[in-house]
Amino acid sequence: MTESDQARTSVESIRWRDGTLILLDQRKLPGEEIWLEMSDLDTAATAIRDLIVRGAPAIGITAAYACVMAMRARHAEYSDDAHAALEAWLGDLDRLAAARPTAVNLRWAVDRMRVAARQGDSDAALERLEQLASSIHAEDAAANQRMAELGANLIEPGSRVLTHCNTGSLATGGTGTALGVIVRAWRTERLARVYACETRPWFQGLRLTAWEFAQEGVPCSVLVEGAAAGLMQRGDVDWIITGADRITANGDVANKVGTLMLATLARQFGARMMVVAPVSTLDPEMPSGDRIEIEERPADEIWGSVGLTAPRGVDAFNPVFDVTPAELIDVIVTDRGVIKPPYEGRIAELVRAADAA
Amino acid sequence: MTESDQARTSVESIRWRDGTLILLDQRKLPGEEIWLEMSDLDTAATAIRDLIVRGAPAIGITAAYACVMAMRARHAEYSDDAHAALEAWLGDLDRLAAARPTAVNLRWAVDRMRVAARQGDSDAALERLEQLASSIHAEDAAANQRMAELGANLIEPGSRVLTHCNTGSLATGGTGTALGVIVRAWRTERLARVYACETRPWFQGLRLTAWEFAQEGVPCSVLVEGAAAGLMQRGDVDWIITGADRITANGDVANKVGTLMLATLARQFGARMMVVAPVSTLDPEMPSGDRIEIEERPADEIWGSVGLTAPRGVDAFNPVFDVTPAELIDVIVTDRGVIKPPYEGRIAELVRAADAA
Repeated sequence: MTESDQARTSVESIRWRDGTLILLDQRKLPGEEIWLEMSDLDTAATAIRDLIVRGAPAIGITAAYACVMAMRARHAEYSDDAHAALEAWLGDLDRLAAARPTAVNLRWAVDRMRVAARQGDSDAALERLEQLASSIHAEDAAANQRMAELGANLIEPGSRVLTHCNTGSLATGGTGTALGVIVRAWRTERLARVYACETRPWFQGLRLTAWEFAQEGVPCSVLVEGAAAGLMQRGDVDWIITGADRITANGDVANKVGTLMLATLARQFGARMMVVAPVSTLDPEMPSGDRIEIEERPADEIWGSVGLTAPRGVDAFNPVFDVTPAELIDVIVTDRGVIKPPYEGRIAELVRAADAA
Repeated sequence: MTESDQARTSVESIRWRDGTLILLDQRKLPGEEIWLEMSDLDTAATAIRDLIVRGAPAIGITAAYACVMAMRARHAEYSDDAHAALEAWLGDLDRLAAARPTAVNLRWAVDRMRVAARQGDSDAALERLEQLASSIHAEDAAANQRMAELGANLIEPGSRVLTHCNTGSLATGGTGTALGVIVRAWRTERLARVYACETRPWFQGLRLTAWEFAQEGVPCSVLVEGAAAGLMQRGDVDWIITGADRITANGDVANKVGTLMLATLARQFGARMMVVAPVSTLDPEMPSGDRIEIEERPADEIWGSVGLTAPRGVDAFNPVFDVTPAELIDVIVTDRGVIKPPYEGRIAELVRAADAA
């Protein structure tokens, strides 16, 4: 297998072809593989709002292309007045940003596009925006690539890996974070088997991760979260590999609910824990994970996701994330390098180096 | 609250009224509460096969009443020949036993009925069978009652309890095992809150346990298995209380998949672990849990239970049970008394005492 084979992505969820954005409809997976073409901002905003596309980096990339399509429409409308086109376009951005108000990457992408449009000649704004959108997409793919290489190099041949949620091509502009490491490890012949937790309540593991592994030809077994302990007890897991939503200065990791359980069991049963996330996930301003507010969602989400209604008087504990303490994490892999304990100081240092670059 | 209030059962799933068996259709819960009346063996056998009734003790009780109904039909058919009726009835039992071939309690109940029918006058067989069926039902309810009292007495006022699967009135002839302890603890004002894991892949917690707690007026929150670690990490669980499928001589416990995870987390985060099961669950012949063969079921069960189909090439790890080592279990509550570590020797002693009684 050549170097380029190892780095290729079979799965992609975002395509940009001749000014048209083409998105894989994630709501329909794994049953149907439906690609939706769109050439205006409002259709793209609806795709973000309706979860046709999900995952922070993927949302940011979609938003960037939506900005390009909106500018093209305004240029066509105000053909002789680039300045008027720009003014009208700035108004369009609010509709886009409102598609998922809490998505940090959505606001980040829109802000970058706004700055780029204003810096320089209005007549050339469309060209600048298209270049920037492509480079946001390419930057994410390149960061995925670096994490995949760094992470896969840590994995011994014959390893059995367990992952959680979906952190692959469906959530990013490239091969993904944790999933990118796993696919790369498979292609470089380090993996014996991959296990994917189904990831309640939304089944990202069952619906998306299993589908991605099938596309990549990686042998995968799904399991319910309750079965992870038995699998580790019989010695069938060498590594837990997950993504992260936020990593604090001391190395605590906020990630999809269930991650703390997996990390605790890994330590108990002799597996190791790897967290894969870009430098943008590191938050050296926040000293430790106990400061992170855990979003709790309504009971209906647990019941409704399987077509049931809660009996009267029954409530739910339904947090989106949990926080894994740094002492349970053996290694953090970023696009700027690998960090091992003690994390304190090293995380801040990595962020400073990235900001300076 | 009086003693009889504390002991009452609001929920029941099996009723015997004037020779008719009335079962609560568990497949329809929690959406619909439908009671099915039946007066012949074949309808009862179908109810067992189709999971209208589930839970080992509940299946045994249903089977006993099915035997009564079959004998009544044979007596009507062979009105002048009680011996011919008995012979025909013995043939009926095979159809009943085949309803769920792996259900130990089903075979146990049928065997007890067969012995009772043969011991004594054929003319009085119907009466003997009806008495025995009622006493199998009553014995189970009494055993539940004793476990509920013994277990509840171990729980300090203000406790927060987490349970798994369904071990209540829907699975037994009385208040249940673990669930019976919890309801009793609530009625005697020892509980602040109950948490019920949803219990993938079949959702017994979400569909049945939450419904039972709602019926009993016990304040309950459901959670996905992946959220249990976060709940314990924030100090919101004092006791994990579960049932058991089998307990070996050294105190290892085979129970619904997910139990090992809960017990491991409990030890890590300072909660205690109580297992509630009748003496018939103790297996002093088997030295330890690593000898128990863990039944694995097909991948389809995980996908199909939420209306999905597995992508080609994706497998599953889908064990029904897991084995929790004795050192993670703080106390075992049986209908013959409470056992604390070290379990070795004490379990065999309890079984000997029960057999001698």
